[in-house]
Amino acid sequence: MNITLEQAEKAIAAAKKKSTAIDTKMNIAIVDSGANLVAFGRMDGAWLGSLDISIKKAKTARYFDMNTGLIGELSQPGQPLFNIEHSNDGLITFPGGVPIKNASGKIIGAIGVSGSSVENDHTVAVAGATSL
Amino acid sequence: MNITLEQAEKAIAAAKKKSTAIDTKMNIAIVDSGANLVAFGRMDGAWLGSLDISIKKAKTARYFDMNTGLIGELSQPGQPLFNIEHSNDGLITFPGGVPIKNASGKIIGAIGVSGSSVENDHTVAVAGATSL
Amino acid sequence: MNITLEQAEKAIAAAKKKSTAIDTKMNIAIVDSGANLVAFGRMDGAWLGSLDISIKKAKTARYFDMNTGLIGELSQPGQPLFNIEHSNDGLITFPGGVPIKNASGKIIGAIGVSGSSVENDHTVAVAGATSL
Amino acid sequence: MNITLEQAEKAIAAAKKKSTAIDTKMNIAIVDSGANLVAFGRMDGAWLGSLDISIKKAKTARYFDMNTGLIGELSQPGQPLFNIEHSNDGLITFPGGVPIKNASGKIIGAIGVSGSSVENDHTVAVAGATSL
Repeated sequence: MNITLEQAEKAIAAAKKKSTAIDTKMNIAIVDSGANLVAFGRMDGAWLGSLDISIKKAKTARYFDMNTGLIGELSQPGQPLFNIEHSNDGLITFPGGVPIKNASGKIIGAIGVSGSSVENDHTVAVAGATSL
Repeated sequence: MNITLEQAEKAIAAAKKKSTAIDTKMNIAIVDSGANLVAFGRMDGAWLGSLDISIKKAKTARYFDMNTGLIGELSQPGQPLFNIEHSNDGLITFPGGVPIKNASGKIIGAIGVSGSSVENDHTVAVAGATSL
Repeated sequence: MNITLEQAEKAIAAAKKKSTAIDTKMNIAIVDSGANLVAFGRMDGAWLGSLDISIKKAKTARYFDMNTGLIGELSQPGQPLFNIEHSNDGLITFPGGVPIKNASGKIIGAIGVSGSSVENDHTVAVAGATSL
Repeated sequence: MNITLEQAEKAIAAAKKKSTAIDTKMNIAIVDSGANLVAFGRMDGAWLGSLDISIKKAKTARYFDMNTGLIGELSQPGQPLFNIEHSNDGLITFPGGVPIKNASGKIIGAIGVSGSSVENDHTVAVAGATSL
């Protein structure tokens, strides 16, 4: 099963609302279960460099069906997945990417958020992911 | 001047409405005046391969401030811009990319649409570009 | 022997002067004998997409030590170099790229110009190439 | 607002002057507010490999509206942005990239300098950025 565009737009709207509430400007990307982009929005004044990062976070979260920050713990020097970021045309493995599940717990896509601290990015991503 | 996210979302909504009216499923991308993605939406069931094409059409329209189909006429064998598509990490030069202007006629971004015939793609792109 | 930065800036200044004289806005790139960028200037309001094209024209002219338009004649369908543009991370083979020679006729670099018709691009490139 | 070519050339001239004053040979790149190259100069004898680095530094500084060295502190192993360099087709996150502001403090572009120690690169970048 795949996230629909309507669901993706709902997730982006929820993420934007949370972003505004915590006074940040975000790039927000939603991918489907095939890790392909479904919807995207860059808030006015958000960092340009976060455009690509938000998409890579969403893809990374779906590629491995887990929060991106968890992969980042394993990709540190000396850890099992050191430099996994070199795969898939570039992964982003710090927080801000979160899988999106449907009501029965099945992963139907992922959200990636970038534009502030990784803590804020993750907070906004969770707001989007849990809005469906 | 740059297109805002609110304007970009309005353009996508208008494009989706036109797409549904002519019974098509489209990928719709909006870039700003710097040719960077502002908003994107892929309608349910739209071709996956059109995802990248829609973004490239939007970028191409802004790169040269004209409808993509016009460039395609000049890039044919024997024409002045043959194989211009090899530049800029890949241009798309058939119809479906259209510059977006503000009320005073200044280009503030562009829209790229892909998912059906090039005639339909162009029709939907115009619907989006003229909705602001 | 290599073009110096001082020579490259002189060529760009001459190209800008010619560009203004014929009422165009150009991207102007100069590469050295190793086909590496030495200097670049994008005139205010010039097409964004011509940035990459101007650099590719300069490189193409030096890669083969001839005007880019000559290569384009050979890269047409049915001609000996059909689709040579796929090499070297993308060539541009229409006019606007011209080798730069020193006083003794040795090639020391190349200029690439993009932003108008290929005729205008070539005219401006020649103005730059012959200014040393 | 975007940096003009005249401003960009003035910044490069100031950076070259500082570079000569401290006996270094630099690659100097200026991007506009859309992170697209506006002007570039490679001083005679400067490292070839620094060509790409100077452009990536300028883009990185504009992508995140801060000095590149600040990002590099956050991208170390164990830090929040570890391996962010894999995004945006390659970031450079050590010193030498600095945003450029207009008189009212608005960011209108960025400068990237590469060719010596990172301390020297940064010194030359600041000289360029503050010359307008």
